[in-house]
Amino acid sequence: MVSNDRNAVRLIRGVRKLRKVVVMGVGMTRLDQHFDKGIKELYEEAVLKALDDSGNPTVDHLYVSNAYADLVCDQADLGSLLLDYCGAGCSPITQIGGACGAGGCAISEGFKAVSSGQSDVVLIAGVEKVSDVVTKEATSISSLCEDQEYEASYGLTMAGINAMAARSYMQKYSATREQLALFAVQMHKNAVKNPYAYLPFEVTTDKVIESFPVADPLTFLDSSPLCDGSAAVVIGSVDSARKFTDCLVEMAGVAQSSDSVAVHERDSLLTMKSTVEAAKKAYEIAKVKPSDIDICEIHDAYTITGFIGLEDLSLVERGKAGIAIEEGTIAKDGKIPTNLSGGLKARGNPIGATGVYQIAEVTLQLRGEAEGTQVDSAEIGLTHNISGFGSTAVVGILRRLK
Amino acid sequence: MVSNDRNAVRLIRGVRKLRKVVVMGVGMTRLDQHFDKGIKELYEEAVLKALDDSGNPTVDHLYVSNAYADLVCDQADLGSLLLDYCGAGCSPITQIGGACGAGGCAISEGFKAVSSGQSDVVLIAGVEKVSDVVTKEATSISSLCEDQEYEASYGLTMAGINAMAARSYMQKYSATREQLALFAVQMHKNAVKNPYAYLPFEVTTDKVIESFPVADPLTFLDSSPLCDGSAAVVIGSVDSARKFTDCLVEMAGVAQSSDSVAVHERDSLLTMKSTVEAAKKAYEIAKVKPSDIDICEIHDAYTITGFIGLEDLSLVERGKAGIAIEEGTIAKDGKIPTNLSGGLKARGNPIGATGVYQIAEVTLQLRGEAEGTQVDSAEIGLTHNISGFGSTAVVGILRRLK
Repeated sequence: MVSNDRNAVRLIRGVRKLRKVVVMGVGMTRLDQHFDKGIKELYEEAVLKALDDSGNPTVDHLYVSNAYADLVCDQADLGSLLLDYCGAGCSPITQIGGACGAGGCAISEGFKAVSSGQSDVVLIAGVEKVSDVVTKEATSISSLCEDQEYEASYGLTMAGINAMAARSYMQKYSATREQLALFAVQMHKNAVKNPYAYLPFEVTTDKVIESFPVADPLTFLDSSPLCDGSAAVVIGSVDSARKFTDCLVEMAGVAQSSDSVAVHERDSLLTMKSTVEAAKKAYEIAKVKPSDIDICEIHDAYTITGFIGLEDLSLVERGKAGIAIEEGTIAKDGKIPTNLSGGLKARGNPIGATGVYQIAEVTLQLRGEAEGTQVDSAEIGLTHNISGFGSTAVVGILRRLK
Repeated sequence: MVSNDRNAVRLIRGVRKLRKVVVMGVGMTRLDQHFDKGIKELYEEAVLKALDDSGNPTVDHLYVSNAYADLVCDQADLGSLLLDYCGAGCSPITQIGGACGAGGCAISEGFKAVSSGQSDVVLIAGVEKVSDVVTKEATSISSLCEDQEYEASYGLTMAGINAMAARSYMQKYSATREQLALFAVQMHKNAVKNPYAYLPFEVTTDKVIESFPVADPLTFLDSSPLCDGSAAVVIGSVDSARKFTDCLVEMAGVAQSSDSVAVHERDSLLTMKSTVEAAKKAYEIAKVKPSDIDICEIHDAYTITGFIGLEDLSLVERGKAGIAIEEGTIAKDGKIPTNLSGGLKARGNPIGATGVYQIAEVTLQLRGEAEGTQVDSAEIGLTHNISGFGSTAVVGILRRLK
C-alpha cells in the first residue's frame, strides 16, 4: 500500500532563524451544546474578544480552523462567511482543516507567518458547531479521522483504537484501570473551576469505571465530549504588538509533525511518533527542556490519550503516567499541572477549535489571568494538539515575558 | 447581521519585500470520473509526477487542498493519510479548505512560505474525488459554498446565482445569449487538444443553448462539470531550485482577497470585489500590467463567471467580454488566449484542486511543454481561482525565466 521504494518527500530541514512571536490577545466562548447560537455567532464572540484583548490591532491575515462545518452546518466556504459576519471586508482568510488537529495546524501557520516576517499581526480562530448532529453521530463523525479503507470500514472506531491502546498500556506497564479513571477524575476537578468548561462537575473513579462502556476497558467517562465553541488568538511580532498592548506572552516555539493515519502501520500503540517529533522540534526552537515546563494543555481525547501524551512529551517517564497521576504530579499543586482547563475530557472537545483553546488557556495562565483555574507563577507552558490517534501533532511552547 | 459598528479586522497592509519564488515542477492526473481510483491514488500520481519533474528536491512543508473528502470519501484527516500513502514519513502537511477556492488558497500559503524565507521548497497538491456521489448531488454539494442561512436554505443554487448574474449582464451590456454560449464553444475547442481534459469534445452555440436548462438562461453546457483529479506543484527559492532543475518559471505574484459569501450583500452581481482586489495586489507584487499578460487560466464555473472574471482581471474592457469572444480575443491565436486547458467548463472542475491545476497548466505553457495546447512564445501567464461566487479569489502571475 505504501510506496516505500522511493523516499518521495524527504525530511524537514533544520530549525531556521526566526523572528520573535508574541500572543497579543485571546478570546473564547464557553463550551456547550449551543443550540441557540450558529457558527457565525460563536466565531464572532471569540474574535471580538481576542481583538479587544489585543488592543484592536491591524490584522494582516486570518486563519480559521474547523473540522466539520460542511457536514454539520452545510457550509464549506467558511472563511469569507465568518469574516463577513464580523464586518471585516476583504481581508484574506485561509481555512485550515485536519479534523481535531486543525486548530494546532492553524496556530502553526500563523506562527510561521509572523516568525518569518511575512505578516506582522495574524488572527487565528478555531470554531466548531456540531451539537445539532452529534448526539446520534459522534462515533461516525469521529471515525472520519481514521483510514476509511483499511480500518474504519471494518468497524474500528476511534474509541476502539484508544481502547486497544489502553489494554496494551495496562498490560505492558502494569497500569491499573483505576489509574486511567483517576485521569478523568482530575480533569473534571479542574473543569469545575473553569468558567468556559462544558462539563464542570466532579466524578469519582468508581463513577468513571461504572459509566456505560464505550470500548472495553474505556467507558463514557473516559471519553471527551464533542461540543460547540470558538477560540481566537491574535499573534504578532514584538514591535507590532507593543504598539497595542502590554500583556504579551512569547510564542517561543511551535512545531508540527505527522504519522500514518492507519494505526496498523505503526510499530506501537503506546507512543505517537508525531508527538515525539513535534515536541523535539518545539523544545529545540524554544530552547527549553521538558523539565522547564510549568503547565501544559495536552490532547486527552480519551484518558489513555492523555497518558500517552504526557509520556511522548517527556513530561512524565515512559510507562509511569498512571503512577504520576496517583502521586498528584499533574494536579494543580503538582509538579506539572496538566489541563487546568479540564482538558478535552471535561473542558470539552470542540474538534477543530481545540488547538486554539489550548493556546488561549495557557496564555491566560502565563498572564496570571486564568479566572478560576490560575496557578501560582507559571513561566513556561506547553500545548499539545493532535488529530485522530496522532496522525498530526502540533506542539506549542509559550513563555511569559518578564 | 453584520456588525458594521466596528472595523473588527482592518485592511491588509501594503506589499512587503519578497524573496523570488519559482515553480520547480508540476504534475497532474487526467480529469475524469475515476471510479477505478481512490483519493490516495490520484494524489500519489500527481505528487510523484511533480517531484520527478522538479528533480526530487527535499521538501520543507506540504499543503493539500481539498473541498469535500469528508463528505464524499469519509476522510476528514487528509494530509497525513495522503502523505503516508506516498511513503513520506513525518513531514508536516497542512490541509487547506475553502471549497472551489481551496487550491488557490494553498498556492497562496505556499507562495508566502517560500517568499518570506520560511521554507525553501514547498509541495502543494490539490485533490478531489467526488464522482461517487456527484451525479445525483452536484447541486447540493455546490450549494455548500453559499450562505446557508440567508440564501441556500431559501432554494438559491449556485446555478441560480450565476443565472441572475447572466440575466443582469445581458440586460446591462446588451450581451446576447449566443455570446455566452460562444464562451463554452471556445472552452470545448481548447479541451479537445488537452490530454488531461474531462470533456474533450466540441460543441456548437446551438447545442449549448438547446442543452437542458439548469437555471434560465444557463443550460447544462454553460456549467462546469465536477470531476475527480489531482494536481501538484513544487515551488522553491531560486537558490534551492537551481540545484535540482533548470526548468524554472517564476511565481511573480500571488494575492488573495475576500468578499461576502451572501450575494444579496453585494452592490453588484456583475463584478467580484475579491477578484478585483486580488488582481490589483497580484499585478502590483509582480510589477506587471494586465496588458502584459500573454495567457491566462480563469475560473469559469459557468460561462457568465468567465465573462465576469475576464473583466474583473482587466483583461477585457468592462461589459465587452461577449464582443471580445466573438472577435476571437480569447482564442488560442487571439490577443489573450484564455483557458487553453478548456477551463473549468471543459477541462473539468475538480473543486479543491482547480487552483493547483491552473498553476500547473500555465507553468507548462510558459516552459513550452503544454502537450497539445501549446501557444507560441508566452512569457507571462495569469491564474484566477475563486470559491463560490467569488467569496474568495486568488490571483497568481507567473513569468518565464529567460
